[in-house]
Amino acid sequence: MSAVADTIRNGVDTGQMFATLDLIKDQPELAKFQFRATNRWIGGAHNRSTIKGFYAAGGEDTTRGEAFEIDAGEPAILLGTDTGANPAEYLLHALAACLTTSIVYVAAARKVELTSVESTLTGDMDLRGALGVDPEPRNGFERIGVSFRVTGNAPEEKLRDVVARAQKRSAVYDMVTNGVPVVLEVATG
Amino acid sequence: MSAVADTIRNGVDTGQMFATLDLIKDQPELAKFQFRATNRWIGGAHNRSTIKGFYAAGGEDTTRGEAFEIDAGEPAILLGTDTGANPAEYLLHALAACLTTSIVYVAAARKVELTSVESTLTGDMDLRGALGVDPEPRNGFERIGVSFRVTGNAPEEKLRDVVARAQKRSAVYDMVTNGVPVVLEVATG
Repeated sequence: MSAVADTIRNGVDTGQMFATLDLIKDQPELAKFQFRATNRWIGGAHNRSTIKGFYAAGGEDTTRGEAFEIDAGEPAILLGTDTGANPAEYLLHALAACLTTSIVYVAAARKVELTSVESTLTGDMDLRGALGVDPEPRNGFERIGVSFRVTGNAPEEKLRDVVARAQKRSAVYDMVTNGVPVVLEVATG
Repeated sequence: MSAVADTIRNGVDTGQMFATLDLIKDQPELAKFQFRATNRWIGGAHNRSTIKGFYAAGGEDTTRGEAFEIDAGEPAILLGTDTGANPAEYLLHALAACLTTSIVYVAAARKVELTSVESTLTGDMDLRGALGVDPEPRNGFERIGVSFRVTGNAPEEKLRDVVARAQKRSAVYDMVTNGVPVVLEVATG
């Protein structure tokens, strides 16, 4: 019992973490993952994504019992009825969640026990871009501000190093800052 | 009643849409929006974003009654307990939702009545990047595939034009393909 308990830090099984790292170093083909979402329009600004299956470590995942159903919407000022957070807000959530989990995992690997991780994200947008009324502003956020507050049983410098390492390794931070090639196909009828 | 009903297409009030466009053309400062998310670590890979307030059209929004609470997690193979979709999956959801709403709004503006909008998104990732075991693969998705199926009361070419215009104007598509500057601050203790 205590040997198992010793490997859990910040709610992360560091024994499993290091075993996974070793396995992937030995067999890099196991590092190939594919995540997926299917989305269906419901009406107006309301649509819903279903997220369940993914490919991981050489095969299709069988551990996820139920699909996640995630509703998107827009507030009234953007012609919706607030059926969910809007897509740009979900992007902020994706970024916050990925940085947070990265901080928690890096801290666990470095024997730092965290007490709290909180963040506030802001995204500034000039809606003239997305509305197409002016060619100058871009469609998306001009900038995103991320403000973290992290506490734990380590000196300030070590906590800052954990955040810096997490920022360097976060999948969504990489995508949001550097962009990703997107290939879009359309079928009609 | 019928005058009001005539302005609703695809669940979108096109009268309000065109009024909004005219207003923003006249007063570009009303186009400044800020969206926000706050996130709190719960344990392990489990964290939760709270999304409510935003700045829009010259003031702080007062129309949203309740906050959206959105849980993130990781599946077992990524050391979590499946407390929610994972951050990279939320990024796919954000992209799917934004493209879908853009399609619906563009169609409404162009007098196209849609019957269905469905999409499947895939994101391919080599986990060696995010795990830091190999400097070569990037952290995030190497590519994202988006496959739309759109049906409605318009010829195929017009439906394809709607999707192409939506792709050109989507806020999240812009951010995911082109990237966004992110400024990250950290406080400890």
